[in-house]
Amino acid sequence: MTGALDGPPRSTRGRRPGGEDTRARILDAARAAFGERGYEGAAMREVAARAGVDAALVHHYFGTKQRLFVAAMEFPVDVATVVPRLLAGGEAGVGERFVRFVVGLWDRPEVQPMLLGVVRSATTDPVAADMLRGLLTEGPLQALATAIDRPDADARVALAGSQLVGLAMARYVVHLEPLASMRADEVAAAVGPVVEWYLYGERGEAPER
Amino acid sequence: MTGALDGPPRSTRGRRPGGEDTRARILDAARAAFGERGYEGAAMREVAARAGVDAALVHHYFGTKQRLFVAAMEFPVDVATVVPRLLAGGEAGVGERFVRFVVGLWDRPEVQPMLLGVVRSATTDPVAADMLRGLLTEGPLQALATAIDRPDADARVALAGSQLVGLAMARYVVHLEPLASMRADEVAAAVGPVVEWYLYGERGEAPER
Repeated sequence: MTGALDGPPRSTRGRRPGGEDTRARILDAARAAFGERGYEGAAMREVAARAGVDAALVHHYFGTKQRLFVAAMEFPVDVATVVPRLLAGGEAGVGERFVRFVVGLWDRPEVQPMLLGVVRSATTDPVAADMLRGLLTEGPLQALATAIDRPDADARVALAGSQLVGLAMARYVVHLEPLASMRADEVAAAVGPVVEWYLYGERGEAPER
Repeated sequence: MTGALDGPPRSTRGRRPGGEDTRARILDAARAAFGERGYEGAAMREVAARAGVDAALVHHYFGTKQRLFVAAMEFPVDVATVVPRLLAGGEAGVGERFVRFVVGLWDRPEVQPMLLGVVRSATTDPVAADMLRGLLTEGPLQALATAIDRPDADARVALAGSQLVGLAMARYVVHLEPLASMRADEVAAAVGPVVEWYLYGERGEAPER
């Protein structure tokens, strides 16, 4: 969890000194490859070919596929910036604002390959699964739950996280319609209340019918 | 969607004539391999080795990896039997009964590898993604939505499906705690109301707080 929320992605910061440039190009290629094929499916030499460099150079910079994956999947959001903004409007509507934020992240062309890479890879690779658990349990969701200080915050975060992972799987990975084609604000209106209910609702009571 | 809900799984129906036995052993091995490593990660020769047969035999019976996958992932539930049972208690509580049913399926040792195989593989393989979409849009969820006859049934099914996929990912694939360790009835109590709200709730209104 580093980098600024609205800052330019690392890969488009313009020219860097030789080594940095090559390293950034390899990371871009890795995000694309892991995003499309997942951890198991993407090979080091495929990443090298996409980056237009020799495979030995990928090994030189990153050593193993696992270390390349971790470096490529750096999360482009600063929780300390995001959470106060989501909470600024008060508890009511925080779920909708949060889902809107998540969908906004997924829709950023430089972020989607990274998120796809984590979700795709998490199904078969333990490091990626760790990373996904980290995004869900140490990310903005945890901060939101902490901000309201309930004894069962961990369960609330996990349940809300399950809905967000499922939204990502359904909308961006398997393209389940009509969810995949809904506008971001429609998704936020539909899923936001559920996230909010998991985080703040009275558990043991049903949502309103 | 064939086979009886509570019937014995195909693989333990006892001895069959030679060819059938071998075929069943290959399918068991395929479910295990796809379940653990997903479509991309599992190789035909790995399936052959697990089944204790020559790789040529796997090709003989199933031709391609894709056809092997489709054969191995036959869904062991008869929707026509399940849905009336879920609806029998009336609309109220149908979400909880449905989630209890889904978790029960996941917890059956002969079914979990198949479901893991579909979810893991759906992230990288179009055929598996199709299969997952089919489970969500033509399965019991669709029948539940149809039973109540709302104009936006497709969106309701997709949203409820996103929560069920996310539950599977969080609980069974990435083992997100404490969700992964909750008892089946706790999961049903926590997630059931959300599924019910997606299917039957007034959209545009928030769940009860």
